[in-house]
Amino acid sequence: MRGAVLHAPGDIRVEERADPKIIQPTDALIRLSATCVCGSDLWPYRGIESIEDPTPMGHEYVGIVEEVGNEVEHIKPGQFVVGSFWASDNTCEICSSGYQSACVNRVLMGTIGTQAEYARIPLADGTLVPTPEVPSNDMLPNFLAASDVLGTGWFAAVAAEVGPGKTVAVVGDGAVGLLGVLSAKLLGAERIIAMSRHDPRQKLALEFGATDIVEERGEEGVAQIKEMTNGLGAHSAIEAVGTQESMMQAIRSTRPGGHVGFVGVNHDVQLSGDEMFMSLVHLHGGPAPVRRFLPEHIKLISDGTIQPGKVFDLTLPLDQVAEGYRAMDEGKAIKTLLELS
Amino acid sequence: MRGAVLHAPGDIRVEERADPKIIQPTDALIRLSATCVCGSDLWPYRGIESIEDPTPMGHEYVGIVEEVGNEVEHIKPGQFVVGSFWASDNTCEICSSGYQSACVNRVLMGTIGTQAEYARIPLADGTLVPTPEVPSNDMLPNFLAASDVLGTGWFAAVAAEVGPGKTVAVVGDGAVGLLGVLSAKLLGAERIIAMSRHDPRQKLALEFGATDIVEERGEEGVAQIKEMTNGLGAHSAIEAVGTQESMMQAIRSTRPGGHVGFVGVNHDVQLSGDEMFMSLVHLHGGPAPVRRFLPEHIKLISDGTIQPGKVFDLTLPLDQVAEGYRAMDEGKAIKTLLELS
Repeated sequence: MRGAVLHAPGDIRVEERADPKIIQPTDALIRLSATCVCGSDLWPYRGIESIEDPTPMGHEYVGIVEEVGNEVEHIKPGQFVVGSFWASDNTCEICSSGYQSACVNRVLMGTIGTQAEYARIPLADGTLVPTPEVPSNDMLPNFLAASDVLGTGWFAAVAAEVGPGKTVAVVGDGAVGLLGVLSAKLLGAERIIAMSRHDPRQKLALEFGATDIVEERGEEGVAQIKEMTNGLGAHSAIEAVGTQESMMQAIRSTRPGGHVGFVGVNHDVQLSGDEMFMSLVHLHGGPAPVRRFLPEHIKLISDGTIQPGKVFDLTLPLDQVAEGYRAMDEGKAIKTLLELS
Repeated sequence: MRGAVLHAPGDIRVEERADPKIIQPTDALIRLSATCVCGSDLWPYRGIESIEDPTPMGHEYVGIVEEVGNEVEHIKPGQFVVGSFWASDNTCEICSSGYQSACVNRVLMGTIGTQAEYARIPLADGTLVPTPEVPSNDMLPNFLAASDVLGTGWFAAVAAEVGPGKTVAVVGDGAVGLLGVLSAKLLGAERIIAMSRHDPRQKLALEFGATDIVEERGEEGVAQIKEMTNGLGAHSAIEAVGTQESMMQAIRSTRPGGHVGFVGVNHDVQLSGDEMFMSLVHLHGGPAPVRRFLPEHIKLISDGTIQPGKVFDLTLPLDQVAEGYRAMDEGKAIKTLLELS
């Protein structure tokens, strides 16, 4: 099959990869209907995360089940399925508590590489959620967004305890930050402040439900949020970047007793215990348990309540994956969808 | 009046200080019935926090109201009152949300120094809570504990979302850690693991409700907690020390999705964002909003449900404050109560 492989920073190619096969009796094999490039794929693409060998890329996927292992009971060939970037059994004590991204048997889909025509999905019964019917092509972007960025933005909003009457600051205007805005809207936030200085992203934030835009960053951004909240700070902050600056911007924008939900993959971030202590904020985040939210998200997408697929502003065939990465790396695209023929 | 003043690391003396007076119309003046030495007083005593000038010490207090300012409406002369180490108006938006320790008008009582015969209490109506009647002398330690260490341990347990069915690990066997054990018991925890290697403290932990004792520390302590919890970690951890080692011990002892409540005053602690991200724990802590809990704690003490004053294992007259600090510094006393004649 054809699949994307990263050879070195900046060098991503579609090439022939071995066809995946059922290995464990709990596996399923899917034929991908669409896949995409994640902001976190840019870390190794930029050389910030190092790779040792040529590495298959991608962890987001929707597709049709082709085959299932002997022990798969609920997932059937022919179903259209959505799964998360962590394969999870969905039955262990950690999964049962809603943290499928820390399942005791989890498998990171990034190690499998879903920017490809086919993929093996471990723990299929736990990982995959079928849609009511096979969706039309124009709905693919919405379901694909549910595989990671929607659930990640939603988790950030839940971790930040967004809800009615709350003011939430959203740090980061990538796909996850924008879907954090959408999630905050759905969860009933009163005021949603999107921190963005890019016109098309501001527009999408407003379309998703942002009530205010703040263009300032860092300490100036914090000062602006404070000024808008009687000097107190937001009740909630969503952090969707993963840098030292964005983490501090989120924490310092939040009032004492408020909640910070952080989902940007942290790189070389150090939090001062002294500052965390005096800030009195709640801090929660990490790899989102997207699986927790999938049934609800599939419903919200199927009935037309939300259209998270709007974050895809570039669509290319899989063979042009290099252009898809380049456009995101250069900030020319929010998120690239890769079509499979 | 007589009061304790720190002149240099290790040099604490009781000497003549100026009699406090009503300064603001919202002040009250109290005659202390008892005061005590806090673990956090040891930071400057040990020279880890530096002081520039001779510094009045102490922030815990119970006593009889002597006089109130013109604008004090609810607190009356003659009442026996308990207050927190943060004076707070108890009416601002932050106080109303339960974070009186971050009141927009807060005053740190440590800057006033309550290891003394008298003290000025700012924002008296917001800060002080009267007891139903003037308690007998044998009840003084219990009410005095409510001024800080009980509320701090309780806040840690609340921040750690301790509750029925939960396993909680308590890192730190000082007064706050021990009262974290008591708080966890009252809040319904199923299993309370006290991490302590000191026999008298282990005994008090068991008396307060600990179900297990773990003597190992650091990574060995973490391994022990994991072994006791099917490899998953505790649901909740209380951190009551404030060092790098104790913070990491608490975070690493907690399962994904679990909660860490930290109340040890942080000193030079650095949290790795990457580790926080992958741990998927909730982190919340800081200076405890003791005032939030005072009405309930006064009730629980008055009706005999709890006896938090048991953490005082050394009682000395105020004049022997130096011996009181020394005993705590050397680990010979858990907490020193200072009597006023």
